[in-house]
Amino acid sequence: MNKAKKIFVTLPFDFKEARELLCNSGFEVVINEELPLERDVFLRESKGCHGIICYPNQKIDKEFLDFVGDQLKVICTNSVGYDHIDLRECEKRNIKIGYCPNVVNVAVAEFTIGLLINVARRISEGIEFYKRNEMNSYWKESFLLGKNLEGAVIGILGLGRIGMSIATRLRGFEVKQIIYHNRNRRTEADNLGYEYVSFDDLLMRSDFIICSCSLNKDSEQIFNRKAFEKMKSSAIFINVARGDCIDQDDLFNALKTNRILAADLDVTSPQPLPPNHKLFTLENCFITPYLSSAEEKSRGRMSLITAKNLINGLKDQDLLYPLNYREQ
Amino acid sequence: MNKAKKIFVTLPFDFKEARELLCNSGFEVVINEELPLERDVFLRESKGCHGIICYPNQKIDKEFLDFVGDQLKVICTNSVGYDHIDLRECEKRNIKIGYCPNVVNVAVAEFTIGLLINVARRISEGIEFYKRNEMNSYWKESFLLGKNLEGAVIGILGLGRIGMSIATRLRGFEVKQIIYHNRNRRTEADNLGYEYVSFDDLLMRSDFIICSCSLNKDSEQIFNRKAFEKMKSSAIFINVARGDCIDQDDLFNALKTNRILAADLDVTSPQPLPPNHKLFTLENCFITPYLSSAEEKSRGRMSLITAKNLINGLKDQDLLYPLNYREQ
Repeated sequence: MNKAKKIFVTLPFDFKEARELLCNSGFEVVINEELPLERDVFLRESKGCHGIICYPNQKIDKEFLDFVGDQLKVICTNSVGYDHIDLRECEKRNIKIGYCPNVVNVAVAEFTIGLLINVARRISEGIEFYKRNEMNSYWKESFLLGKNLEGAVIGILGLGRIGMSIATRLRGFEVKQIIYHNRNRRTEADNLGYEYVSFDDLLMRSDFIICSCSLNKDSEQIFNRKAFEKMKSSAIFINVARGDCIDQDDLFNALKTNRILAADLDVTSPQPLPPNHKLFTLENCFITPYLSSAEEKSRGRMSLITAKNLINGLKDQDLLYPLNYREQ
Repeated sequence: MNKAKKIFVTLPFDFKEARELLCNSGFEVVINEELPLERDVFLRESKGCHGIICYPNQKIDKEFLDFVGDQLKVICTNSVGYDHIDLRECEKRNIKIGYCPNVVNVAVAEFTIGLLINVARRISEGIEFYKRNEMNSYWKESFLLGKNLEGAVIGILGLGRIGMSIATRLRGFEVKQIIYHNRNRRTEADNLGYEYVSFDDLLMRSDFIICSCSLNKDSEQIFNRKAFEKMKSSAIFINVARGDCIDQDDLFNALKTNRILAADLDVTSPQPLPPNHKLFTLENCFITPYLSSAEEKSRGRMSLITAKNLINGLKDQDLLYPLNYREQ
């Protein structure tokens, strides 16, 4: 019998079912428990492996692929996004890539609605005020006044699967109009009454702007000074996509000068944001530590898909969710 | 010409349109700007008044009514609830009461969905963690894992106008079932697929329990030890009704012992809660300072209704929203 193929897992892989499946697969499995995983450890532990389970924080680039060796056949990312993986370099080496589309759509969409209402209706501010006993202004009618989604124009950049799930969840809120901008107009969205607009119109017309696009060369820093200047001064901005979709210095200035009303970010650049980052000093900027998919059932399913993706790949079977190079 | 009738307004009445309407009404208007308003000042300033604009924090009882004098003809509360007003005593004196139904339904319903997602998806916890730089656990898959509304049973106690608005907003969330308990079953709700259940069934079956009933002798402390013991240990409890619907000691114990998972309270007893209250010491209890109706447009409309209610009343015209004694 051949020596068992080796798998390196860059994250603790806490979910019982997925972990057991992987550990009972007959392959040699090394699970990293030391977090965060430093680059040199990542390289060293991956060397000689046939399969890798990774996370968006680990860059899979030419240097990595050259270093770990050409026995590497399958890389499965425990995420929806795969912008941390150099697809061209992987394709050259015939490496199969697995990922987890769809499984977190609902979780991310619910979380996004939560962020919208949190910032619009000042929930976390209210909790903070109370805890810090800063209640002098409590009795005023204007105390922590917020805004409703009802009657508002909601703009979505990136009406993909997650964007559509967000729009679905807005159904009961009596919003005035959902408008969206995408690389491609979607008939499905048109049929639901969502209006396709230019990016400029999205900026100018929206009361709430949600960034839920994938990160690519078109969307990198698409929210910059020019974009913020086109927004309403009452606009609320939400980012559940990738930190690099935003020029954070420009966002800081837009918030600091009240060019826009407030922002709620679940993703930042870098991820996580260092504690002394200037965005933390703003009273109108709310930052969550990348929790959009942090939901029990979704994460459990995600781990299971990742484990199955990898096992299938190493057994030369079809991956459950393979990345199709031709569509990239 | 008679001496102008006198109005005492217990709150600053910040909204321009309503304030101007009131101040240009030809009546003598005294607006209290000192907050919180102490009971003795409330009594003294109200003495001799013909109209009062008040807020749920000011108790209108026999003592008050005896003290201020029988010239008092109209009391308008700048709120939806009127449990602070002794209706029998007012009726005896033929005092007209105005209130503001419906105007905040949407605001309260949106806020309630915000609270649900905030606690279920741990948004304010995430913001806090980040700010306090407690990020050691950040890299774990189990970091701040939450729960979706998708697939959950949502129980609503009090499916009145606000409860119905809450249910409407859940439409896009793919919840498993909305169940409700009310004094009376509602055909309208049945037609929408909401299931009428006993209070015990509501407690036992719900993943999320929302208290949105009015406060009366049946609902006072209805959420007590017995109730919490019947809930799922994974249950999340939300109160947007009145603090007195809950036995707070029992809630504290239920949360402290993890008998239930978490709670999100927008109302407390007393209101506001003193900063040293034990509920603030719990990590699974989130408390907002009565913000459910704190929304710009809603509060503006509310003030305007209150002003019109009072002016009409003093002019012996019909109130916009009079309280009907016979329905109480």
